[in-house]
Amino acid sequence: MSHDMSTQIQLARRPKGWPVHEDFATVTVEYADPAPGEVRVVNEFVSVDPYMRGRMSDARSYVAPYEIGGVIAGGAIGRVVASAAEQLPVGTVVLHQHGWTDVIQADASKFRAAPEVTGLPNSLRLHMLGMTGLTAYVGLTAIAGLREGDTVFVSGAAGAVGTAVGQIAKLLGAGRVIGSAGTAEKVALLTEKYGYDAAFNYKDGLVRTQLAEAAPAGVDVFFDNVGGDHLEAALASMNRGGRLALCGAIAAYNATERQAGPSNMSKMITESLTMQGFTVGEHWDKAPAFTELMTGWFMDGKIAYDETIVDGIDNTIDAFLAMMQGANTGKMLVRI
Amino acid sequence: MSHDMSTQIQLARRPKGWPVHEDFATVTVEYADPAPGEVRVVNEFVSVDPYMRGRMSDARSYVAPYEIGGVIAGGAIGRVVASAAEQLPVGTVVLHQHGWTDVIQADASKFRAAPEVTGLPNSLRLHMLGMTGLTAYVGLTAIAGLREGDTVFVSGAAGAVGTAVGQIAKLLGAGRVIGSAGTAEKVALLTEKYGYDAAFNYKDGLVRTQLAEAAPAGVDVFFDNVGGDHLEAALASMNRGGRLALCGAIAAYNATERQAGPSNMSKMITESLTMQGFTVGEHWDKAPAFTELMTGWFMDGKIAYDETIVDGIDNTIDAFLAMMQGANTGKMLVRI
Repeated sequence: MSHDMSTQIQLARRPKGWPVHEDFATVTVEYADPAPGEVRVVNEFVSVDPYMRGRMSDARSYVAPYEIGGVIAGGAIGRVVASAAEQLPVGTVVLHQHGWTDVIQADASKFRAAPEVTGLPNSLRLHMLGMTGLTAYVGLTAIAGLREGDTVFVSGAAGAVGTAVGQIAKLLGAGRVIGSAGTAEKVALLTEKYGYDAAFNYKDGLVRTQLAEAAPAGVDVFFDNVGGDHLEAALASMNRGGRLALCGAIAAYNATERQAGPSNMSKMITESLTMQGFTVGEHWDKAPAFTELMTGWFMDGKIAYDETIVDGIDNTIDAFLAMMQGANTGKMLVRI
Repeated sequence: MSHDMSTQIQLARRPKGWPVHEDFATVTVEYADPAPGEVRVVNEFVSVDPYMRGRMSDARSYVAPYEIGGVIAGGAIGRVVASAAEQLPVGTVVLHQHGWTDVIQADASKFRAAPEVTGLPNSLRLHMLGMTGLTAYVGLTAIAGLREGDTVFVSGAAGAVGTAVGQIAKLLGAGRVIGSAGTAEKVALLTEKYGYDAAFNYKDGLVRTQLAEAAPAGVDVFFDNVGGDHLEAALASMNRGGRLALCGAIAAYNATERQAGPSNMSKMITESLTMQGFTVGEHWDKAPAFTELMTGWFMDGKIAYDETIVDGIDNTIDAFLAMMQGANTGKMLVRI
């Protein structure tokens, strides 16, 4: 049977600070024919995401840490090539969470059929039309309570989530939308392609100063992917009654030293601010409404996106490391 | 006419760090007979509160800074001794915000009649039955969304607000209630008098360690009067979906150096926490419901309280400084 060999990337040990290749092990698995109820899937795209760094540590967290010797789980989309489960016949496109592997065979219940949408590439199901887009939507609506005319600041705005946040915010009626990114090219993309009204390079100077200049009337909603000095800067610029949606803190993910927090937490009291952390896993109930809305926006040509694609399962670790260092614009994907 | 001389304490300059006597000026004002519409009030009690330190600085904040050369405004209760306003005849007990003065004469609209409640001293209107109690109630209910059985941690629990928070939390159905204070005497009072299930002295060791021991099953609601290491400790102990009501940050009020914030802000995301700062001034609409509830609890003998009383308007500055340094148990008041 075809595709019976699978290349899989496991966690070999828990990274300290920035992950290195030695923290992972690549293994080959040979599958027998699917047992009754099983399917075999050849992946088309595998996702690498910032949250995965968290699962590589064993800190108490909202999802269990990856097990040492286990495959790095995460989003992927592929096609059924062998099936012993009638609900997922050969040829079906499926979404799943089996992660960093080129071929995966498992019980059919672990895969979800993902009917193709004419004119939209399957890869979108791993970002704008999937978890990434839902994260942006939930953060802006359920968490930050976005209101018509709000000034919105997005940190790490050229990442997968950030490029979704800016566009969704504008489509939902935000006023001024401001983003930060780490290269001049990304900053240009934010205003030229992603609908941001203003953007700055956080390496060009203090975030606090640059944000204050970009948002002279203050910030009503902060969507944070970075933490650290971005959070402190946002607190300094927040308007009374402002809302902070904390989605990611990539600044701290690879830190080995204790990171000092914002020095201006008292702004929470003096400006009656609300800060809420969230993870999209608790908001799947909003997926149907989001998917309908987002598909409509795509059909109307209202959503731009970028993909940074790396080819081959063997390059997954490099793709992950590059993404953590900001090498991607938009969504980082591994194409099998 | 009697009581025509008034002693008033003004802000002479903005304090740097801990306030000193030289930051204030005591002046004597002689009043003419009340003009039509005016009343003259002799204060019985004058309040000194932590928030006043904030108004002495000129930082942008939720209330305007005190003006240099202006009287320190704040809560007080007194009795009308001369009246040219029929709605407030001589003898009426009134609440007002004229602050640090023994006698005050002004338009009747600046005073609010405060009918005496049989058996309850007037001073309670400046704390448990007034702004202090309302602050505790609003923080627990509207801000933290207290639920039956929640474990609650209160920092600075032996202060005016803290002694109210512990008792109200228990009366509203909280499970375990834990408090911190800065002396062994205060710690004892928390469990013996104020209904706390556990308490510790934050000077005895790391707040983080002591809180983890006192709350082995974690914290659901944090009511913060202190900030700093208390906030960091609370973040470390918060259960998933926990709520943090930030009421005060006395640890930072007199700081002249930049204070590092919590090093564990990422807990906001990993545990889906909500943190909200508030000031009671935005929640006066809840005062009638609170007053009815609290008066009932008092009548049923369910509320304990302490007052630390300093006599004489000339000792107001010392009372304020002592309160900032934690010399009070319960409410610090100046009796005229």
